[in-house]
Amino acid sequence: MTTVLIGPLQAHLFENVCFHAALLTVFGTVALDTTRTPFRTETRILGGAATFASISASMFSKTSIVAVVGSDMPQEHLGAIKSKGVDTKGIINIPDGKTFHYDSTFDYDLSNRTTNKTELGVIEGFDPVIPEEYAKSDYLYLANNDPQQNIKILKRFDGPKLIVCDTIEFWINKDRQGVVDMIGRTDGVVINDNEARLLCKEANLARCAKKILSWGSKFAIIKKGEHGAILFAADGLVFPASAYFLDEIVDPTGAGDSFAGGFLGHLARTGRSDFATMKEAVIYGNVMGSFAVEDFGVRRLLTIGHEDVEERYVKYRNLVQF
Amino acid sequence: MTTVLIGPLQAHLFENVCFHAALLTVFGTVALDTTRTPFRTETRILGGAATFASISASMFSKTSIVAVVGSDMPQEHLGAIKSKGVDTKGIINIPDGKTFHYDSTFDYDLSNRTTNKTELGVIEGFDPVIPEEYAKSDYLYLANNDPQQNIKILKRFDGPKLIVCDTIEFWINKDRQGVVDMIGRTDGVVINDNEARLLCKEANLARCAKKILSWGSKFAIIKKGEHGAILFAADGLVFPASAYFLDEIVDPTGAGDSFAGGFLGHLARTGRSDFATMKEAVIYGNVMGSFAVEDFGVRRLLTIGHEDVEERYVKYRNLVQF
Repeated sequence: MTTVLIGPLQAHLFENVCFHAALLTVFGTVALDTTRTPFRTETRILGGAATFASISASMFSKTSIVAVVGSDMPQEHLGAIKSKGVDTKGIINIPDGKTFHYDSTFDYDLSNRTTNKTELGVIEGFDPVIPEEYAKSDYLYLANNDPQQNIKILKRFDGPKLIVCDTIEFWINKDRQGVVDMIGRTDGVVINDNEARLLCKEANLARCAKKILSWGSKFAIIKKGEHGAILFAADGLVFPASAYFLDEIVDPTGAGDSFAGGFLGHLARTGRSDFATMKEAVIYGNVMGSFAVEDFGVRRLLTIGHEDVEERYVKYRNLVQF
Repeated sequence: MTTVLIGPLQAHLFENVCFHAALLTVFGTVALDTTRTPFRTETRILGGAATFASISASMFSKTSIVAVVGSDMPQEHLGAIKSKGVDTKGIINIPDGKTFHYDSTFDYDLSNRTTNKTELGVIEGFDPVIPEEYAKSDYLYLANNDPQQNIKILKRFDGPKLIVCDTIEFWINKDRQGVVDMIGRTDGVVINDNEARLLCKEANLARCAKKILSWGSKFAIIKKGEHGAILFAADGLVFPASAYFLDEIVDPTGAGDSFAGGFLGHLARTGRSDFATMKEAVIYGNVMGSFAVEDFGVRRLLTIGHEDVEERYVKYRNLVQF
């Protein structure tokens, strides 16, 4: 028998990198983004909520994606998603269709974004088809999308262990009741602070979370951008977490979706969803969000591996501990 | 020899409640505040940066205050400050003078404040006199005030071990160079995020902190209200800390000053200012800020004792640990 001495980072890696067999499916947009910051403009780069969430989740768990694109989506973009191990056969390609295109501008401190153009293209009226093997997914993430489409797709799954959704201003304004109904069918919600306020018609975030839980969800995570996130669960359990501290941010696009991917990915790989595991998952979410903003689009996420993720998790722990 | 078994909270109390002999002096405003929230209006209640900071610091350390009031300041208000053990003989009373009066309104979610009226009264042109025994203070906190007055008062002290200042928009707009000069004469700065951005002409908070340190300060704490605070020290050391989580906030007035009092009070009682102690001090600052906002003005701070502070510190640790 050989005894091998390992340091704390190695022990941590050993404990967490072993993949769990659970399948996580992400449903949402795969997009072309035109992103303008005060420093640079990037035109029609790979974006979309499901892209960020699935690439992020793939660092933790077996991940598949359901989405629709048009024939203008470059093959190398889809190849990039696949290169991270994401099962992309759920991405439908509509011949002669136009991929969802989102054009936006960030202000001087990258904290506010103005939409210049939203071209829905092929996502309008999309009737999602799910490859047979996805139906048995244990974990399902409904990245922001039409709540009615989300409710519809839920019926095509074979009772996932955990369903989490996000939503945005656009759907809250267009179909608030649909968003509330969708939330009632999920286990957890991941949502931005301002969108939580808009949805709940309530300024206080603790009361927003109570309202979301009263609609049938078991937990709510309110994301606060550079200020981190707060996890609210049943019985008044709360976990506020600072964001991982970065000196510079290049492009905030996709931070929230990468957060959701890391959060769900960690739950999927551990197979647990108790409060202590959810707290760890929030930190993994912050870690993935922090990588996402270090370059335009998904570029930074494409360059990192498990070791980078676990190393930053340990760094985060050291950073906030006192 | 008797062995006494104590629990972690008791051990923690035992370690931290023992007073250090160091004297901490706070210089700043003692005011009458009219505070309007969507729920209630309170007229001419006890307020002022030095009031909050000194009451907060007095939970940790021997604290004295230097300020000026008019004859309209009710005696019971000064009695309240004194009742917490603050040495108030540095509060000058100007006969027939009017106490500084600040009238403001908070918006629906208590996150923005509009100034209705600022009546400087006796603080205009005040030439601070310092009781002889204050001159030997080990710790000095210059709560927001005229930077020129702060620079002047510094000369009347006998080389404090640690000098910390705050400043606000009013002085940055009126005398930015004076604020920069003042910072160069201090060891640390405690400042709001938006005021840091205004002062440093820079949106990124990490770069703001670097600029403040380049002016001669050894550390900068950037306060972010309900989102907590970030401590920046030399050699790129950083500590982001979430705020203590509260379901409800009654009146945000004085949170930042109570933070500064708790922060400096903890440094004073331990006699240390290494990075690990400063991190603890930031948490004590958050704890004191969280008490301050639970009622109007200093009311909540007046009702709490050492045990409450240490208990919340332990609660905070449990809250954020993962």
